[in-house]
Amino acid sequence: MTGSSPPLRVAMVGNGFMGAAHSQAWRVAPRFFDLPLEPRMSVLVGRDAGRAAGAAARWGWAESSDDWRSVLDRDDVDLVDIVTPGWSHAEIAIAALEAGKHVLCEKPLANSVEEARAMADAAARAASRGVFAMVGFTYRRVPAATLARDLIAAGRIGTVRQLSVSYLQDWLVDPLAPFTWRLDKEQAGSGALGDIGAHAIDLAQYVTGRQLVSVSGTLETLVTERPVLAESHGLSGTAGVGTATVTVDDRALFTGRFDDGVLGGFEASRFSTGRKNALRFEVSGSLGALSFDLENLNALQFYDGTADPATRGFSTILVTEPEHPYMEAWWPSGHLIGYEHGFSHQVRDLVDAIARGEQPRPSFDDGLQVQRALEAVELSSQNGSAWTALAETEEYA
Amino acid sequence: MTGSSPPLRVAMVGNGFMGAAHSQAWRVAPRFFDLPLEPRMSVLVGRDAGRAAGAAARWGWAESSDDWRSVLDRDDVDLVDIVTPGWSHAEIAIAALEAGKHVLCEKPLANSVEEARAMADAAARAASRGVFAMVGFTYRRVPAATLARDLIAAGRIGTVRQLSVSYLQDWLVDPLAPFTWRLDKEQAGSGALGDIGAHAIDLAQYVTGRQLVSVSGTLETLVTERPVLAESHGLSGTAGVGTATVTVDDRALFTGRFDDGVLGGFEASRFSTGRKNALRFEVSGSLGALSFDLENLNALQFYDGTADPATRGFSTILVTEPEHPYMEAWWPSGHLIGYEHGFSHQVRDLVDAIARGEQPRPSFDDGLQVQRALEAVELSSQNGSAWTALAETEEYA
Amino acid sequence: MTGSSPPLRVAMVGNGFMGAAHSQAWRVAPRFFDLPLEPRMSVLVGRDAGRAAGAAARWGWAESSDDWRSVLDRDDVDLVDIVTPGWSHAEIAIAALEAGKHVLCEKPLANSVEEARAMADAAARAASRGVFAMVGFTYRRVPAATLARDLIAAGRIGTVRQLSVSYLQDWLVDPLAPFTWRLDKEQAGSGALGDIGAHAIDLAQYVTGRQLVSVSGTLETLVTERPVLAESHGLSGTAGVGTATVTVDDRALFTGRFDDGVLGGFEASRFSTGRKNALRFEVSGSLGALSFDLENLNALQFYDGTADPATRGFSTILVTEPEHPYMEAWWPSGHLIGYEHGFSHQVRDLVDAIARGEQPRPSFDDGLQVQRALEAVELSSQNGSAWTALAETEEYA
Amino acid sequence: MTGSSPPLRVAMVGNGFMGAAHSQAWRVAPRFFDLPLEPRMSVLVGRDAGRAAGAAARWGWAESSDDWRSVLDRDDVDLVDIVTPGWSHAEIAIAALEAGKHVLCEKPLANSVEEARAMADAAARAASRGVFAMVGFTYRRVPAATLARDLIAAGRIGTVRQLSVSYLQDWLVDPLAPFTWRLDKEQAGSGALGDIGAHAIDLAQYVTGRQLVSVSGTLETLVTERPVLAESHGLSGTAGVGTATVTVDDRALFTGRFDDGVLGGFEASRFSTGRKNALRFEVSGSLGALSFDLENLNALQFYDGTADPATRGFSTILVTEPEHPYMEAWWPSGHLIGYEHGFSHQVRDLVDAIARGEQPRPSFDDGLQVQRALEAVELSSQNGSAWTALAETEEYA
Repeated sequence: MTGSSPPLRVAMVGNGFMGAAHSQAWRVAPRFFDLPLEPRMSVLVGRDAGRAAGAAARWGWAESSDDWRSVLDRDDVDLVDIVTPGWSHAEIAIAALEAGKHVLCEKPLANSVEEARAMADAAARAASRGVFAMVGFTYRRVPAATLARDLIAAGRIGTVRQLSVSYLQDWLVDPLAPFTWRLDKEQAGSGALGDIGAHAIDLAQYVTGRQLVSVSGTLETLVTERPVLAESHGLSGTAGVGTATVTVDDRALFTGRFDDGVLGGFEASRFSTGRKNALRFEVSGSLGALSFDLENLNALQFYDGTADPATRGFSTILVTEPEHPYMEAWWPSGHLIGYEHGFSHQVRDLVDAIARGEQPRPSFDDGLQVQRALEAVELSSQNGSAWTALAETEEYA
Repeated sequence: MTGSSPPLRVAMVGNGFMGAAHSQAWRVAPRFFDLPLEPRMSVLVGRDAGRAAGAAARWGWAESSDDWRSVLDRDDVDLVDIVTPGWSHAEIAIAALEAGKHVLCEKPLANSVEEARAMADAAARAASRGVFAMVGFTYRRVPAATLARDLIAAGRIGTVRQLSVSYLQDWLVDPLAPFTWRLDKEQAGSGALGDIGAHAIDLAQYVTGRQLVSVSGTLETLVTERPVLAESHGLSGTAGVGTATVTVDDRALFTGRFDDGVLGGFEASRFSTGRKNALRFEVSGSLGALSFDLENLNALQFYDGTADPATRGFSTILVTEPEHPYMEAWWPSGHLIGYEHGFSHQVRDLVDAIARGEQPRPSFDDGLQVQRALEAVELSSQNGSAWTALAETEEYA
Repeated sequence: MTGSSPPLRVAMVGNGFMGAAHSQAWRVAPRFFDLPLEPRMSVLVGRDAGRAAGAAARWGWAESSDDWRSVLDRDDVDLVDIVTPGWSHAEIAIAALEAGKHVLCEKPLANSVEEARAMADAAARAASRGVFAMVGFTYRRVPAATLARDLIAAGRIGTVRQLSVSYLQDWLVDPLAPFTWRLDKEQAGSGALGDIGAHAIDLAQYVTGRQLVSVSGTLETLVTERPVLAESHGLSGTAGVGTATVTVDDRALFTGRFDDGVLGGFEASRFSTGRKNALRFEVSGSLGALSFDLENLNALQFYDGTADPATRGFSTILVTEPEHPYMEAWWPSGHLIGYEHGFSHQVRDLVDAIARGEQPRPSFDDGLQVQRALEAVELSSQNGSAWTALAETEEYA
Repeated sequence: MTGSSPPLRVAMVGNGFMGAAHSQAWRVAPRFFDLPLEPRMSVLVGRDAGRAAGAAARWGWAESSDDWRSVLDRDDVDLVDIVTPGWSHAEIAIAALEAGKHVLCEKPLANSVEEARAMADAAARAASRGVFAMVGFTYRRVPAATLARDLIAAGRIGTVRQLSVSYLQDWLVDPLAPFTWRLDKEQAGSGALGDIGAHAIDLAQYVTGRQLVSVSGTLETLVTERPVLAESHGLSGTAGVGTATVTVDDRALFTGRFDDGVLGGFEASRFSTGRKNALRFEVSGSLGALSFDLENLNALQFYDGTADPATRGFSTILVTEPEHPYMEAWWPSGHLIGYEHGFSHQVRDLVDAIARGEQPRPSFDDGLQVQRALEAVELSSQNGSAWTALAETEEYA
């Protein structure tokens, strides 16, 4: 950060918890990675001017605004970082890309395949002009997950035979946990499926290098009415009532077939009592296996089936060494990183790709693929768990 | 074992690995538990007279025979213990019950619902005469599993909300692993589904106290041709050829709905590289959760959601204390038991039930219920994972 | 066990918990291992004739007696298995050896170096006549521990650099836990040090193939008075009083230097709240490391420092495969064994050695070496933790 | 961070790895915590002007300097943050305190008790003028460690009975690992003892709320000569030679007695093959126990001995909830933090204390206490592990 790199002026739209995570990444990444462009935290946009100003001050953005459209008109903004709820992604992202701004958009890409397709189309048009879009599946950039991908790509577990992926949380176990926008289909698109199942799908596809082609699944809502807190008034359909109806799933169970025929078992739940943020995968191959749990994110379990039969077993790799993805930039051997570091890695990779004029990944096409998988699961669930091709989501959309 | 208890004279049919496990249980249980009847290892039956004699000598049976029918005619046999492959269970068990012998039959109960129903009918008739039948789902009697059942029954995790159950092994990962009778549908009934999935189903039903009513699932065979070893000749359809076709599943993935509406995710696989005998369950309730893995069978994970929020977490209960099921009979605090102890617990419970004139559990009805679940999964898999009621297996059978 | 092997007629002296474990081993070992001599459970000896008869019936001994000396006169006894408290070991073992009986003696060998030396001398004289003595450090024969020894001997962790060993229990944490003979120096010799620290020392020496030459340590007694239960009356010095004075250590902390200069840290405690039977070691070498915990006795942790830096980590070896020591005799891959199996392994190795006319290990010399280490720790503790050579225990004795 | 808080202008002396960690803390803490003073990263001081300027640019310091003394003369510096090697701490810290600057000094406080006492005296004089000094034992501020302290202070494990503490790394296992200043007694004071053993001592004292009064220990150096890399030339006594002599310990084993009589076992090693940064403690009390490992820093193990005997066991508390120390400021439930977050917590607590005019902890007196313990261990090791009171270090100094 000697000031010799050209600047990359960022506007962030949204000021919820994800805004804090993204701000931390824009702030921290340049201090640990040599970036070809120097990110500048130029402007934070929020719907409420006062709250936006407060968040900008707290998080270190130079300015704030309550009008995202006006920000798109500014010449001194190069990239728009979208951390709003899913229903607003399409409109903002497409407008930003058309205005010539690079876009980083939180996951899931949209609330429907239709929106996601429009976004992917806009991204394709923009890319032809050297303007790029990326969707924020940051768990790809947890070093242990990246290492898993690298090991599979290098053939270290042989041919992938099967996988199991789950994302387990428990914040809805209490039936008195209050209603939020995340439980409203209009705003959130879906429930556990889209919120955390989307991560499970993206991670499974990323780590294995394969794509889902069809699914069979079941969604369920375990608590259908929840109390509305006074501060929640204004949510669609909840004004003035004591409870609101949960219109999204609490849990999704599905089986997915990948393009090479491999089957994966998937689960996403907000009712996994005692599990706080357990994104897990296990990939079994002809020569080995890999297992991961985000609740212990610095570790990767690796079974090398080619090792001496008397000593083989799952090894706990502490993914904190300079040999590991992204880790040379951080602390000495054995020093752990946390949740937020994936966002710094995302900034690094995004900035690198933009500077090189290359498409950053995961692209909006990648996001669209996940959206198709989400909707195929919903379709399947509505049709008695019938196997549903992701292609069928087009007509559904 | 002062000799004051009346004898229970046992004939065991079968001399494979399961015979060793059952023999150990008949030998050991009376040394650690006060049994109301004194088991006597009277006669071991095997198809090959020489091998039966050898096994009898090694395992400590007083006599051997190569004719199970003749054993049923003997007055000095009270109980027949069936440890043969599944295709032979129905014939032997029904004949034994009709001959007035109590029966312990290995799982799965049979190779089809039709057979299982006939067995359950025979067991019902026998029970009316004070002659009892039991099916050998011994994992119910791993103390950690029994404790899980007890804790759920006592309301310690509140209302059961969801569960996940899997049974993972890896002995077929190598495509050159040879063909065996377990890969032949005629003899084995099904593959991973019936062999280990049956355990997963029984354990899920036992631990939760609920029954599956319908399923949606997918079976797959990952390696369809396997080499035939010389010693395997004589297997159906394999004589004189270099390979044989695998006619059973290698992996089963299914979702089951229980009678109270709860959904469970299930997986049974022989391709889970690095997992040797990982029968696992996690049951999530409104107040807590329980988690278990047979590869660490002396431990049970318990999450008490009613505990202090600052200190709650999954507790590793070392299930080796006198407060724990079956454990007072064994060693001092902290001393582990192994796989085989479940068989001794099975002997204790079976002998106790017979002496009291009560139906031992799991009964043949319980075994039939599992058989229905297995066939419903097969039916569902054949019908594009359509939800299939266990009742539908009747017409299928 | 076809009866073709010559018999090995066993008399067991003692009928406490260890008697149950040894009985199980004599009963079970011949059923799983091909033994060159066929053990016969001939006679059980206890001080109280009635209790001895009851234990003999329960555990399956042909006869019982209340006079161990008379048993030594019998021609139909080949081996004496001593499972009494430590204070009685020397007298019985020496008499048995002089009577021409093989001896298996529980650990620790004796309550003093003086006694242990006399026993070792008697064993040396007997060995010259083909009569052998062994001391029962069975944890050497937990397959994971044996595997650790094998891996170190094969150079798989390179040169041993350091080790840490501990044996942690918690049965004395409650200050109201009653007084027992184990807390009386006269009867028990020492406390945590001799009871469980002895195992830690033997295992450390066995696994590394090295011997302790000097120690520096500290003993402490955390609760010095304990209530006497009515049934405990008769213990030395406790008759008629409400409490008794604990005259042994509750915890021992010491550092030991091995013959090749390596330092080991040791801890033995009965006050490790929550730890039930945690015998642990970690051995670090120039090329790798090994780690073990008896509370998960089927697992061994192995770090292979020569592996790829990106994937190395501690592997959890599930020591249940045919490649592992003793395991081929038991169950299929992935099936766990328990505490008692080490005793069956001990029987196998003892019977094999006797049949071959070779000295079984651990010998009484090995037991003497451990006894010297125990007393050196006591000496050091009395002398302000001054480094104390094991050789100095001779004059102390 | 609205700019309404008064500034706290910081100068940091040192630009090694610790400088990166401290810079991150000064940068990040104000974004997550409401601080009563607003830290400003004013000036970074390094011996080499060019390197200092580069580090300042990378880490975000406004200015750089190669003269720490000149910085002390500046009115626009309120606090001096010392992250240099231990030999230089005393001079800089005392001068800074005398110049009226608050001081944050990395651990260990100094290379000798003599220096540490001078520093503590300077701190006492400064405190009387409202100028405060703190030593950087940041592991106190890993939330799991802070929670352990809180639980012990609240009596949740009853009376502390014993503890074991170790800090294990493996970066010196390779005998060809090059010589560095950390292996030179002149510069580093001691080896594993002072570098990581100091953390073990401070954490043990902090968590238990007790102080060490005497120790018995042994130091050893396992590799005494190491190669000198070209870039290391200039190290004392190494110029022009191929190897240098290691003059510090590689491993320290000691027992410490706390002021209430409790004994703790301690180990610090750089030869624990496969352990990268394993700072561990286990504290056993009359009612429970706590166990921690920095390699899984978001977890704390808690055994509640007062819980139901059938379900008690060590609970894995995922210390990521709003109920946990420091965690409300960070991410939602279940989201992990890393190594560096302890430094942000340190900044928060330091700034809070300064603003309130209270002594921040750990104070220089706390640092002096640790220094005394370190030197008592060295003294004991030189005297055959004789028990050595910390008070005796005065005359040694």
